[in-house]
This record gives sequence, C-alpha cells and structure tokens, in this order.
Amino acid sequence: PQVRQTILAATDIVGYHTYLNLVKDLTVGKECHGSDNRVELDRSKLALDLAASGKNVVVISSGDPGIFAMASAVLEVLDKEAKPEWQTIDLQIAPGISAMQAAAAAVGAPLGHDFCAISLSDILKPWEVVASRIASAAEADLAIAFYNPISSQRTWQLTAAKEILIKTRSGTTPVILARNLGRPGQEVKVITLGELVPESADMRTVILIGSSQTKLIPRADGNNWVYTPRSYQ
Amino acid sequence: PQVRQTILAATDIVGYHTYLNLVKDLTVGKECHGSDNRVELDRSKLALDLAASGKNVVVISSGDPGIFAMASAVLEVLDKEAKPEWQTIDLQIAPGISAMQAAAAAVGAPLGHDFCAISLSDILKPWEVVASRIASAAEADLAIAFYNPISSQRTWQLTAAKEILIKTRSGTTPVILARNLGRPGQEVKVITLGELVPESADMRTVILIGSSQTKLIPRADGNNWVYTPRSYQ
Repeated sequence: PQVRQTILAATDIVGYHTYLNLVKDLTVGKECHGSDNRVELDRSKLALDLAASGKNVVVISSGDPGIFAMASAVLEVLDKEAKPEWQTIDLQIAPGISAMQAAAAAVGAPLGHDFCAISLSDILKPWEVVASRIASAAEADLAIAFYNPISSQRTWQLTAAKEILIKTRSGTTPVILARNLGRPGQEVKVITLGELVPESADMRTVILIGSSQTKLIPRADGNNWVYTPRSYQ
Repeated sequence: PQVRQTILAATDIVGYHTYLNLVKDLTVGKECHGSDNRVELDRSKLALDLAASGKNVVVISSGDPGIFAMASAVLEVLDKEAKPEWQTIDLQIAPGISAMQAAAAAVGAPLGHDFCAISLSDILKPWEVVASRIASAAEADLAIAFYNPISSQRTWQLTAAKEILIKTRSGTTPVILARNLGRPGQEVKVITLGELVPESADMRTVILIGSSQTKLIPRADGNNWVYTPRSYQ
C-alpha cells in the first residue's frame, strides 16, 4: 500500500520496460521512461536528473529494491557522479518482498534459520570472489539463496557452484527452483542438490539451497513442505 | 493487502501478545489467543489444533514469518507431532518485510550485494556453530544482518561476534542499529564496527554490518546514506 501511494503520487516512472508493464494500471497519465535491462546506471542518472528538475520520480524495481536491485545502483550514481543539484533530492527507499522470500513462503520456511544470499553473476565481481563466498557458505552450513543463477551469456557458473557445494552438502539436500514469482506463469519446484543442472534454471529463476538441517514434510497432495528448523543439531 | 484480507477473513488469531496488540484494529470480534514470547511451539500447536477443528486461523508474526519467525515453528510442530487430523489443514504462508530490509531501506542499500543473516542466539544452537558462521561470513566478506543480538540473559554474544569480525574487517566498517522498525519509537542509527558495544542494542534491535565494500555518502542533513555496491573491487 505504501508503494502504491508513492506511485500514484509520482509524475515520472523510471524502470525496466518489463516492470513498467507490470504496474501500467497505476501509471496512466504519467511520464513513463522505460529502458532495457542492464542499463541500471543510466536509468539511475535519468531518475536523479528528473528529480532534481522538480519532478516526483519513482524508480521501479522488482522484489526488494535493496536486495540485488535498483537501490544500490541509484546510490552508486549519487556517490560517484555527485552532481551538486542532486543534493536537494528527497530520496526514499521502500522495501519489498524479495524473490527468495516469495519462493520460501511458497514451499514452507527453508530460510527459517541462518542463511545467505549470493549473486552468481560474475559480470560485476570476479568469479573467484563468488566461488570463495559459496565455499564459505558451505563451510558455515548456511541455507543459500542464489540470485542470477544463469543467463544466455553465463552458462557454467551454476554447475561450478554446485560442484563447490556438493563437496560438503549431501546430494539429497532440498533445492527450491522458483520462477516468475507473483506474476503470471509462477513456477515453484522442489528438487535435490544432486538433480540440479543448468537446465533447471534461467535468468528469472531464484534458487534456494537447504542447509544440512533442512527437512521435507510430506503433504496430502503429494508435494512436500520444506523448512529449516530454528535449532541446530 | 494480502495479509490484511487474510486477517479479516479469519475467525481466530494466534500470536505473541505484543503483536496481537499491533493488529487489534483488524481483529475486532475475532477470538484472539495471545501468548508470551518464547512459547512458539505451544502457540503453533494451538493454531494447528484450532485449524483442524474447522477454524480459520491466522498466526501473527513480526517481519517475514519465514525469516527467524513463526513459519519454521509451525512446520516444526507439524513435522514432529504430525497429528493425523492436521493433514487436511490448508496451510499458507504470507511473506513480509523482515527487520533487516526495513533497516536497510531506512539508510540506503547496505544489503545491496551478497549478504547473510545470522541469529546470535545460542539458545537453540551451540555458540560454536554461531561463531563459525560469523567467521565464515567474515572470511567471505559478506554484509551481515544480526538478529537477536542480545537479551537480558544473553549479554556477551554481541561482543564475541564483534571480536571475530574485527580480525578481518576494519573498525571503520559501517554498522546500522535499528529498533522498533515500522512501529512507534522507530530508531535507526549508523555507527562503526569499532563503536559497537553491548549497550548499542537490545532484544528488539537488528544490526547490519557492512562488508569491506560498503560505503557512506554524506547527506545534506548531516546524516549518511549507506550502500554496498553491486560490483566488487
């Protein structure tokens, strides 16, 4: 409701085309500035310039803008370009439900205890950093949410991540694949770590990996609940 | 809005007294079953029994029920006690904004890149597990959200956690202290890791610790934005 009011009060909406489309019922009569994926910095700069010129601007993000999304991009531009006229902008960030949370709620509570969230993209950080983070998460026996698991350009990273995990985590560890959360075509599937292959995911998939403690509970409909207990044994 | 509808449709509301109070405008005329803190398993059992008897039951949780909250407790009871009459319950979990997300949004985007969430409570897991998870998170240079940092019974854990972190993370690392998020008396403060002391927090505080990449941006009002860039250098 907070976000809906904010959008209704705005004069200008900035965002990835696909996301602008998802809120088009709320943006009738407003200036919509759509852009392609992967131009987050240009998009942020446009939004800051519009806001500095007196417009009431909303930058649309999917999930939680604070988790692998637009808030960091806007602040990065604000920090690095630091135009004097941006100083007076009244910037606010509204949190939201990130993909890992919607995925978790759909199957139970796999993130119910200690967990981490790691982006598998090595476009903005070296793969060595990604790999060492996965190794540490495995060692710490944390449940893990993988964002950006794969794309048409990045095809081997998910297999590499699995190879690191499987050294310490059982092949029977529950894995949740979730796609298009909260949108038409939502898919949520529970498999095992042993079954995870690149074909399991695409760029819209978030993947949750259980810890050694994560359990399945059979449901009457043949599916399973997945949860990570609050206690550690 | 989804959660509001769910509460309005319920006959019975189960939860911690304090949280029931926060939603009392929505629960007029419903059976409210309040209980004390720390009786999550009894509360879950009551809710499942009520639901099995044909009631439309909502278990109230703060933040996201899937993150250090009631969803795991309910599933744990469902798993371990597994009463046959519970099989037919149509259980649903509605995600929410967890404290770390509200804290992050209030100051910028400190969780904008890879991060982990760790409970400092050693009531349900040995401190050695907590300590090794903190050490791994430090080694992996993840931003960290600490839940349950301190309580009247647990007073030394926060200092122990800081001692592990400060071995590899600078004393100038930004730290966010957030209390009573989204409630009257909300407080959000940015300090440094070096300044973190047990008196900084209480049982209602969530603490965010920056990674080596987390930066401050000075604001016109004298405060700072805090963000973790999407790229890693």
